[in-house]
Amino acid sequence: MFEGLSAFPLTPLVQGEIDEKAFISLITNLATAGVNSIGALGSTGSYAYLTIEQRARAARLAVENADGIPVMVGIGAIRYEDVLQVTEDAQNAGVSAVMLAPVSYQKPTDEEVYALYENVSKYLSVPLCLYDNPATTGFQFSDELLIEVANLPSIGSIKLTRLPEDIPTATERVSLLRQRLPVNISIGIGGDWRAATGLSAGCHVWYSTFGGLFPRTALDIVNAVQSGDIKRAEMLSGALEPLWQLFRAYGSIRVTASIAELFNYAKSPCLPFPLSSLTGDALHHLELIQEDLRNLQ
Amino acid sequence: MFEGLSAFPLTPLVQGEIDEKAFISLITNLATAGVNSIGALGSTGSYAYLTIEQRARAARLAVENADGIPVMVGIGAIRYEDVLQVTEDAQNAGVSAVMLAPVSYQKPTDEEVYALYENVSKYLSVPLCLYDNPATTGFQFSDELLIEVANLPSIGSIKLTRLPEDIPTATERVSLLRQRLPVNISIGIGGDWRAATGLSAGCHVWYSTFGGLFPRTALDIVNAVQSGDIKRAEMLSGALEPLWQLFRAYGSIRVTASIAELFNYAKSPCLPFPLSSLTGDALHHLELIQEDLRNLQ
Repeated sequence: MFEGLSAFPLTPLVQGEIDEKAFISLITNLATAGVNSIGALGSTGSYAYLTIEQRARAARLAVENADGIPVMVGIGAIRYEDVLQVTEDAQNAGVSAVMLAPVSYQKPTDEEVYALYENVSKYLSVPLCLYDNPATTGFQFSDELLIEVANLPSIGSIKLTRLPEDIPTATERVSLLRQRLPVNISIGIGGDWRAATGLSAGCHVWYSTFGGLFPRTALDIVNAVQSGDIKRAEMLSGALEPLWQLFRAYGSIRVTASIAELFNYAKSPCLPFPLSSLTGDALHHLELIQEDLRNLQ
Repeated sequence: MFEGLSAFPLTPLVQGEIDEKAFISLITNLATAGVNSIGALGSTGSYAYLTIEQRARAARLAVENADGIPVMVGIGAIRYEDVLQVTEDAQNAGVSAVMLAPVSYQKPTDEEVYALYENVSKYLSVPLCLYDNPATTGFQFSDELLIEVANLPSIGSIKLTRLPEDIPTATERVSLLRQRLPVNISIGIGGDWRAATGLSAGCHVWYSTFGGLFPRTALDIVNAVQSGDIKRAEMLSGALEPLWQLFRAYGSIRVTASIAELFNYAKSPCLPFPLSSLTGDALHHLELIQEDLRNLQ
């Protein structure tokens, strides 16, 4: 399942509660578009801001509305016992994979991070995607640790958020990782503005916030790379550069939430407080490209 | 209450549950030593790793066993609704203050952090200590934001974890902050190895992990500064340099937990998984100074 487009939808909230209708609409849209997998409850899906019960409910809603498309959910939490509970609930809900970032309060050591993955993997009946995201966890995986964890039996994929910006250097990086990783491990790229480069450089899968809202446009980029037309992939992604600029400046979750609110896919405010969709100048920047965004699907 | 020594005890755990006997012993030791306040459920007290129910219970145990000494508890959580619940529980338990760091998953903006403090302050019947700890939150307060938040009516103190290392530069920094902060705000220093310097530079209070285990030795340092004997304070803190080295290298929570385990103040392992007390070389380094530590109290 760790290939092509893995689309990460928002989990729209209303005053801290899941807006189930809006969430189901987003899931249904992804299923209809035919994405390869749905990353419900990723960073974009605000997994870290939800209660254990809400996470169980969202996992179930996602699986029930995915029309057979594999669903992956984030299982990270500061409290280890919560990780295990969320994992059990997700597996009971019928997810096809789980994703784990080393969410923590105290900065963990490499040994502690390895112990986390090693222990969690004992409870898994589905494959795990290792999520390397220093921007949210504050933890930097070394290549050595990445490879050590990837050798645990349950690991199926690695989601990278760091990759060189040009295709030749990125290709070198992906090839090096592939040589050192077990053969069955899929390498995925997060950070939507790097996706065309990452896929062209040999990544198997694009873990995409953008694709959670505009799956068909994202699939166009994936299909272009898969058919060998890297120029077209770069052109399609390049056309989205004004959006990528906003992603980099304000965070993709805030921009995506603002688009969802503007287009009435979600009620405003849809993010967990104190996170906020765009306001002031930032919102104005988004409104300037609003008409272009309406052509995306 | 935000003056002198604020001692931050561990919350010893046994398999994810609070070891109440060990926790009460630590609190009682602080009360007997006559610390100025008890910072139960600080970073050292693993607040971020506990359930809402455990946090309510620990707050109650701390107040009940503090013999009238004011208790402060950490109220931070990724989920805003959890912050409010923990705050309500803590106030019902009779705490004298709360402490809030901008704990988050997505890196928050300045506006979001301000909105967090502004909204939480509406629910407070006790003063709040603003906790600036980029090492755990990943968020850096600018001076402008620090001052803006400090002007909210409920703020009583600011806990800094960053300060210049020499007394003259640190004094300059503390004076500058004091000029810009409301007059009623107490400035506190965290990071035990900086405490003698911070207090000598004009900080009102030492928020101390070390003091959570060795309150009398910590009070000696505070008393030396308060009686104007800065040389003695520096000498006392300097004698602890081998311990401060371990704090800086391995994190004060891991070192303190290891000492508590070595001295049978807590069962091993007492930290929330995957956090681990010291092992291997690190533990060996601690054992090398074990005899000196036995002279502390």
